[in-house]
Amino acid sequence: MEPRSGIITLTTDFGTRDAYVGAMKGVIYRILPSAHVVDITHEIPPQKILDAALLIEGAYPWFPPGTVHVVVVDPGVGTPRRPIAVHSGGQLFVAPDNGVLSSPLARRDAIAHEITEIGFELPNRSDTFHGRDIFSPTAAHLASGVELERLGSQVDDVVRLEVPHPVVSAGEIRGEILRVDRFGNTLSNIPRSLLREIGSGPYEVLVSDRSFGTLRRRYEDVPQGDSLALTGGDGRVEISVNSGSAAEELGIRPGDVMVIRPLPAEAGSG
Amino acid sequence: MEPRSGIITLTTDFGTRDAYVGAMKGVIYRILPSAHVVDITHEIPPQKILDAALLIEGAYPWFPPGTVHVVVVDPGVGTPRRPIAVHSGGQLFVAPDNGVLSSPLARRDAIAHEITEIGFELPNRSDTFHGRDIFSPTAAHLASGVELERLGSQVDDVVRLEVPHPVVSAGEIRGEILRVDRFGNTLSNIPRSLLREIGSGPYEVLVSDRSFGTLRRRYEDVPQGDSLALTGGDGRVEISVNSGSAAEELGIRPGDVMVIRPLPAEAGSG
Amino acid sequence: MEPRSGIITLTTDFGTRDAYVGAMKGVIYRILPSAHVVDITHEIPPQKILDAALLIEGAYPWFPPGTVHVVVVDPGVGTPRRPIAVHSGGQLFVAPDNGVLSSPLARRDAIAHEITEIGFELPNRSDTFHGRDIFSPTAAHLASGVELERLGSQVDDVVRLEVPHPVVSAGEIRGEILRVDRFGNTLSNIPRSLLREIGSGPYEVLVSDRSFGTLRRRYEDVPQGDSLALTGGDGRVEISVNSGSAAEELGIRPGDVMVIRPLPAEAGSG
Repeated sequence: MEPRSGIITLTTDFGTRDAYVGAMKGVIYRILPSAHVVDITHEIPPQKILDAALLIEGAYPWFPPGTVHVVVVDPGVGTPRRPIAVHSGGQLFVAPDNGVLSSPLARRDAIAHEITEIGFELPNRSDTFHGRDIFSPTAAHLASGVELERLGSQVDDVVRLEVPHPVVSAGEIRGEILRVDRFGNTLSNIPRSLLREIGSGPYEVLVSDRSFGTLRRRYEDVPQGDSLALTGGDGRVEISVNSGSAAEELGIRPGDVMVIRPLPAEAGSG
Repeated sequence: MEPRSGIITLTTDFGTRDAYVGAMKGVIYRILPSAHVVDITHEIPPQKILDAALLIEGAYPWFPPGTVHVVVVDPGVGTPRRPIAVHSGGQLFVAPDNGVLSSPLARRDAIAHEITEIGFELPNRSDTFHGRDIFSPTAAHLASGVELERLGSQVDDVVRLEVPHPVVSAGEIRGEILRVDRFGNTLSNIPRSLLREIGSGPYEVLVSDRSFGTLRRRYEDVPQGDSLALTGGDGRVEISVNSGSAAEELGIRPGDVMVIRPLPAEAGSG
Repeated sequence: MEPRSGIITLTTDFGTRDAYVGAMKGVIYRILPSAHVVDITHEIPPQKILDAALLIEGAYPWFPPGTVHVVVVDPGVGTPRRPIAVHSGGQLFVAPDNGVLSSPLARRDAIAHEITEIGFELPNRSDTFHGRDIFSPTAAHLASGVELERLGSQVDDVVRLEVPHPVVSAGEIRGEILRVDRFGNTLSNIPRSLLREIGSGPYEVLVSDRSFGTLRRRYEDVPQGDSLALTGGDGRVEISVNSGSAAEELGIRPGDVMVIRPLPAEAGSG
């Protein structure tokens, strides 16, 4: 058996004002009283699968090997969409097969199994709350050492989201804004690591054809209240306002096009 | 001594932006560093006792035996209302004696003790924050194995809420809407298990005299955007909109009357 | 080595809808899988250092010795402002050196060290997310027993906030409203323990020259809906409305002046 960390994380759209999350935690502790249950977030906008996929992508890589991540954003609960369990990069995941696990599934070593083994579900399974009745008990069993193989058959035709990818072409990178965070930073899908494909910099960053100047390193590289482009905590280029909200003050929205290109030489020291 | 799970859950109206919940957790860990403190919710609307009673009713049954549940919604803090500790169904509860524990107290095996033993309170007890000064330390002592008897005398005249109960009469069930959840589902007080008293189905569900047709099993039994009646995760009948908000789109509110009756035979297959 | 409780608390302005807090927790568990990570709050208003300082002041004293508190409200992330680790009153703290630790730093036994030892940071340190890349790993190492001395040099010129202090003069105390809590209680900076300096009471409490009568002990000392002054859970005088919101109904705001003076004798029994 591969080692387990004993940690089970929860990422849902259930919010924190109902009993749903509490019931999930109860089910987990009933099966594995020594578990460490860790809230990632319960504030995914209701039924937004892409938001959940991006969120778990930003959090799971930091956890220790053998952690089990439960991701429940499940507009299709009760339909034939399958519950799946995934092994990827030394970590484990349980979720509905609707694309929320697109990031771990993109790894070459990813293996997915359908969850069919009734022994791992609760006796009174409901048709409306699989977070409690399927995903939580499965996660607890995985965290206590049960192997993926015992949950059900391996499946290859899992659902993957069409996450927008940045494109490198004609010496520039075209991507888009994916999310706005709590501070109003507008986060793109362009990883900093991609920039070397268009030269060693400096780089100019534009959103919706508006230039935000040179790609900076820190918020404080511009005066308070000024906008700038920089690499955010998730390693991707974002547009921010130093001590302000780029989303509110600049009107940048998910879907807006971001372009990064080499800064013209004469402007390099500007 | 009965076994303890080491798990202490918290259900309060304290919100998460002040230091109140943090102070409660500190007090618990100071007494029992090995505790697993689990947030159920801190988003009970301020001083809404019935909301708290319904919330803990939906969460506590899923936890393992020997779990201690702390429920603090306490508009009477500082008045002579008693702090109580309750044993019910193998689990333990501490709360003000104001009805928040109506659900565990409804079990036949429930035993309540007043909390008077000063040794289990903090030295600097305040008149305004019993969550930190009485309920948290009492919970930590219970979780570490202290018996209910040592907290104070058994009491029989505890406060019970007048929770609205559904009524079966003339071949139909009359209940009411109790709560709206995060998704806008409107949850009634009619458990699915009660339906057998009016026959084997199918059943028709009405709210405020408006029919929502046959009781369904899954959200996906109707097209996206359509309304339906089905059994929610808590085992009770609710009105929902598939991928929408019943509360917003249909204007259903807590207190609205729900009626369930046998579906007329000619409509049974409709 | 001084004992450690294994508990690590988190106080941030990151909110709970992004992946930031999840990433911090992952980093901590990766280094110390047995840690108990405890959320104090993530709802500090963005970049409000004073709010964070007041919040942690209200929570940390309740935790057991050897607890590590992580406080990340960090408008200067990426600037030369130092990351520091502090030992105070038997507990440990990691935070940016911007004043958020003013309360533990005010103790005589407080010792601060700059965090410079690269071995305690992650390999891919970002310029925008030190909560994950510096503070979380440092906290995990401290919680596992690493001594403060190994993090970097001791520093004496740490940043302390100018927290407004109450002043006793001419037989009265002048302070101010600092915060509004979830219930609308308006919390001042005047500790009840200061009152003995102006006599044994009773005391009259005024805010912005408006009298709220005698300082009371409990919300229920006045009818529902009435305003009153009393000592809150943090030991400081506050203005409240019994079962209501003082902030909304009375228009009291942070910065408003509070005066406490002996109640004139003829009004003492009023």
